[in-house]
Amino acid sequence: MFELKERDGLARVCELTTKHGKVTTPVLLPVVNPNYLTISPKEMRDRLNVQMLITNSYIIRGNDALREKAESSGVHSLLGFDGPVMTDSGTFQNHVYGDVSVDPDEIVRFQSAIGSDIGTILDIFSEPDFSREQADAAVDETVRRGKGAVECKGDMLLAGPVQGGLFPDIRERCARDLSALDFAVHPIGGVVPLLENYRFSEIVEVIIASKKGLNPSRPVHLFGAGHPMIFPMAVLLGCDMFDSASYAKYARDERLIYSTGTRFLRDLHDLACHCPACTKTSIEDLKQMPREKRTKILAEHNLHVCLREINRIKNAIHEGSIWELVEMRARAHPSLLEALKSLKKHKEFLERFEPASRHGAFFYCGPESYDRPTVMRYQERYFNRYRKPATKVLVGFPEGTKPYSRIYSKEIAEISEKVDASYVVTSFFGPVPIELDEYYPIAQSVIPKELDSEASDRIVKTMERHAHQHGYPLAVMWEGKQTLEFLEEMISGGGRKVDLDMLRCRAVLDMQFGRGAGDILDGKNVEIVTSERTGKIRNVILDGVHALSMRAHDGRFSLKLEGGRLLMKALSPPKMRVMTDDEPAEFAAKGNNVFAKFVLECDPEIRPGDDVLVINTKGELAAVGRALMNREEMLAFKRGIAVKVKDSPD
Amino acid sequence: MFELKERDGLARVCELTTKHGKVTTPVLLPVVNPNYLTISPKEMRDRLNVQMLITNSYIIRGNDALREKAESSGVHSLLGFDGPVMTDSGTFQNHVYGDVSVDPDEIVRFQSAIGSDIGTILDIFSEPDFSREQADAAVDETVRRGKGAVECKGDMLLAGPVQGGLFPDIRERCARDLSALDFAVHPIGGVVPLLENYRFSEIVEVIIASKKGLNPSRPVHLFGAGHPMIFPMAVLLGCDMFDSASYAKYARDERLIYSTGTRFLRDLHDLACHCPACTKTSIEDLKQMPREKRTKILAEHNLHVCLREINRIKNAIHEGSIWELVEMRARAHPSLLEALKSLKKHKEFLERFEPASRHGAFFYCGPESYDRPTVMRYQERYFNRYRKPATKVLVGFPEGTKPYSRIYSKEIAEISEKVDASYVVTSFFGPVPIELDEYYPIAQSVIPKELDSEASDRIVKTMERHAHQHGYPLAVMWEGKQTLEFLEEMISGGGRKVDLDMLRCRAVLDMQFGRGAGDILDGKNVEIVTSERTGKIRNVILDGVHALSMRAHDGRFSLKLEGGRLLMKALSPPKMRVMTDDEPAEFAAKGNNVFAKFVLECDPEIRPGDDVLVINTKGELAAVGRALMNREEMLAFKRGIAVKVKDSPD
Repeated sequence: MFELKERDGLARVCELTTKHGKVTTPVLLPVVNPNYLTISPKEMRDRLNVQMLITNSYIIRGNDALREKAESSGVHSLLGFDGPVMTDSGTFQNHVYGDVSVDPDEIVRFQSAIGSDIGTILDIFSEPDFSREQADAAVDETVRRGKGAVECKGDMLLAGPVQGGLFPDIRERCARDLSALDFAVHPIGGVVPLLENYRFSEIVEVIIASKKGLNPSRPVHLFGAGHPMIFPMAVLLGCDMFDSASYAKYARDERLIYSTGTRFLRDLHDLACHCPACTKTSIEDLKQMPREKRTKILAEHNLHVCLREINRIKNAIHEGSIWELVEMRARAHPSLLEALKSLKKHKEFLERFEPASRHGAFFYCGPESYDRPTVMRYQERYFNRYRKPATKVLVGFPEGTKPYSRIYSKEIAEISEKVDASYVVTSFFGPVPIELDEYYPIAQSVIPKELDSEASDRIVKTMERHAHQHGYPLAVMWEGKQTLEFLEEMISGGGRKVDLDMLRCRAVLDMQFGRGAGDILDGKNVEIVTSERTGKIRNVILDGVHALSMRAHDGRFSLKLEGGRLLMKALSPPKMRVMTDDEPAEFAAKGNNVFAKFVLECDPEIRPGDDVLVINTKGELAAVGRALMNREEMLAFKRGIAVKVKDSPD
Repeated sequence: MFELKERDGLARVCELTTKHGKVTTPVLLPVVNPNYLTISPKEMRDRLNVQMLITNSYIIRGNDALREKAESSGVHSLLGFDGPVMTDSGTFQNHVYGDVSVDPDEIVRFQSAIGSDIGTILDIFSEPDFSREQADAAVDETVRRGKGAVECKGDMLLAGPVQGGLFPDIRERCARDLSALDFAVHPIGGVVPLLENYRFSEIVEVIIASKKGLNPSRPVHLFGAGHPMIFPMAVLLGCDMFDSASYAKYARDERLIYSTGTRFLRDLHDLACHCPACTKTSIEDLKQMPREKRTKILAEHNLHVCLREINRIKNAIHEGSIWELVEMRARAHPSLLEALKSLKKHKEFLERFEPASRHGAFFYCGPESYDRPTVMRYQERYFNRYRKPATKVLVGFPEGTKPYSRIYSKEIAEISEKVDASYVVTSFFGPVPIELDEYYPIAQSVIPKELDSEASDRIVKTMERHAHQHGYPLAVMWEGKQTLEFLEEMISGGGRKVDLDMLRCRAVLDMQFGRGAGDILDGKNVEIVTSERTGKIRNVILDGVHALSMRAHDGRFSLKLEGGRLLMKALSPPKMRVMTDDEPAEFAAKGNNVFAKFVLECDPEIRPGDDVLVINTKGELAAVGRALMNREEMLAFKRGIAVKVKDSPD
């Protein structure tokens, strides 16, 4: 069982429940070789705060002493670890040595018998150089074995690895076929050879293809990815679990893992680390001590670094800065940067999981920042949802301090006194109508003054599209007083006062809920309550009823029930609607949250963080609230809240 | 006394000698307020491995009890710290509170009396909003006080802060005036208001202007820069010392410092840190414990993070990756990225300190990587030093796997059989003649396949300049067999075998030592010894004498004495020459290194890591060796090696 707790796009913090307790993901499972304990599981638990382990059932089974102990007292007792233990099956040994002979059902039964919390099927490792035929065959056999395995797993949770080599369609097919079976976890297999050769772009393709086919309510484990360099990007793409044998393997090679790469001990002048392992020694002592002692210290260091990076990633998910973390870490190696650049191919997929807004600011980290889904979404909505006010002229301002409406207030007042105009700012995100200057991510972004030419080029292209599409009678760039004189000469009919608050309400409604949503203001007595201190919109009262509240942090509306009622009329189904069975809908109408398992249908355009309408099967409004998932997640998750109800009749 | 130990451009690891022991720079001095010890100096020494402290003499002097103790038993005893202690003078208090009244000479005498290792003059804090007149006046008064202070400092080392607000010329003038006085350290003052407002680009301007005027043999202290975000860039620009009051100040505000930014404790879900302070608690416990106890833990965490970043930077200097570290860290905040982008204005200055080559590879981190001085230098030398072989046609190959001569060997063999051609590759660094493919940084670079358009645009521009300048009769891009057919039709006279080893020797000599150096091969019996395993050039024997050895790691020549003798004739003075007095020259002729204090003159084009000619005052060759400094450093440093002698007559 797997429950979503916090998210930033596909990156997520979840709770995984096992027979031996709950685990918070993303999680790193140190690989424990029962024949050779570099660090004992007890030490891992006590000193390193390790939540969960992975060990190899094939190795245990192949050693009489280990097998007898495991069969008689269980794998937890064998390892001396009372937390959850996952077991692998011998697939990787087959990849490396090619001589694994065990019956696929038999190894699953064995894992179940020794009390593994999560067992793994004996899948077929699909090599990166596999042909289509070979990859297809590996997937066929993996799925066949998966079907057998779910029959003999008992009450053990089972992991079904996605295979398919470098063929995205085969990976996706495998993922879909496995999702139909009773698996609890989906490792992504066959990636170790890619990792070892820094083929990060291809890992991105493999993960995304797999995620597209997988049931989103199941944890995804990037099998064999034990170096923190890849963790942030893998989590960004929706991986939840990692295992690491590298911590010990690298230690035996006298190499230290850092979040930004690996270094041989002999090349370092200082450990430059304050983990507990490094703190209790010095680099000079470390170089001179007996090898076995040194290996253990290096292994502990490596594990500390891996675990810390996972915690760093969790923090980033909570604060909504996973993109910034990934873009920063991508500088650790040019191949990682190449992988980051390749993400732009998958913007549409990533956008489906992209939150409506964030609490933290959008930090520009390089030309790749322009390819984040939030930028694409702003532009798409601007072109498809925003409706320009019917004025005679469009005045463009250059980028400036935010919010724009404040720094350009004098100019706007001057111009609008004389000319009937609309106003737009040429920003990093594209054209920003002045009334959208507080809408996420416009005001909530920090962009360097000097942009990369790549970013500038693309902004210019977007502005051209803008002028073309909206076809203003006249468009000018503001260049001071002379612009105003020019406009007065060209445009007759005099000025028109700008009602910025009214424009803002209309524009935000359209951008947030869809073109046409702004029409709920038409023919109503509109009362806009603003903050005395900041002047920002707080509440919108329509014909005397509180319908909308604007959030200060993202410039978007929270719905009151009245706002929901009006949107029901303005937006045709299924827009912004989440449908539940009638009983949970009644429950929601009393102010209770909507659990994912009760969701029957959902507007596919709803995004995590969107303000939505909860309806019953007759299409009647039950409540309004905040969606925590998109459609495919609501329909997949068995646990957790789909919509946090914010206002309801009772 | 200050000695250079290791360097990467202006970034350097040095040894600073004080009365209380030696300190390795870059170094962070925690600020100790004797009235309020968040962490005691003894704990700093024992548990945090702090090398050196800074405290405030003005505060000590203003408190009767502290002053009496300091005057009777010294500042070290007052603080309980037996390592070096630096003292500040009250300038910053004057900046903050504006009510400091102490005689400038008096406070210097007081610092000397209490046994400070490095005292500071009472300089005038120049605010960022100072006018030219105000900044000039602040500098005049600072220099005036400096002159007084050096008279009454006793045997104490003295720090003379560079002021001048935001005016580069005034900063540089101040730096030059102070360099003429007997100071041991130069803080850069007046930067705290810039740091507090993330005005990193302006800090860059201030540091560079100051460095241009300062004596390069003195340590530079970025006064009041206590956040690790700025450390890597400041070190890259030649700062050696930092002080931090932030560790305690941020702790009192419940904020945690990370190398990538600062977080309020309340916003964190996990400490995501394994420093000794964080390891002994959990975030839940930390939030609930008594405030005073929490402040101390946060202060220790903050100090650990700052100290670790300094060690990380030292490692980067040793491995030659300071640019990569700076470019990675610049993603911590868009303002830092803006500062990184602004460095391109100062390429010429930075190039003067840029090492000839590095042991590590050049990692591409973003479009800013194109502005590293090493890229500019390659291009400049290519245009000014490289001489094209006189062939009938230039064939261009696209970028590919390195080294290029290996992947294009088949094509070259085919073409040269039929046509008289030269070969060039369109690389990230610009045009690379095939014979320079192993020359640093060409082969020693890792560049993503897809470049930013900014980088691509500039490569195209450089290629255009290349074609224009060299004016080949015919230039074509290789597009397979049809190109060869086309060439055979156009060019008569048949093929010419490419002697790649010979071309390489000539081209590397010109690029490394200057145009014309390649002529030392003319009219000689040239024997090129290559590695049996790799095929790479190892030794060049001229008329039977071993003259040059090629280094595998950077594709450049190490000089043997015979090579030096030949270069003496080929290159007119002062090219590649380091002149010493006759006695040290005799010493060098016996194989001893040349110390900086004995250097009389030096070719201003010599760069750290260059292979150079050591000559006596009569201009006679004494020895050949590797320069560790550029001209201005050799002439300034009183300690340390200027040239490591590699070959000599005796």
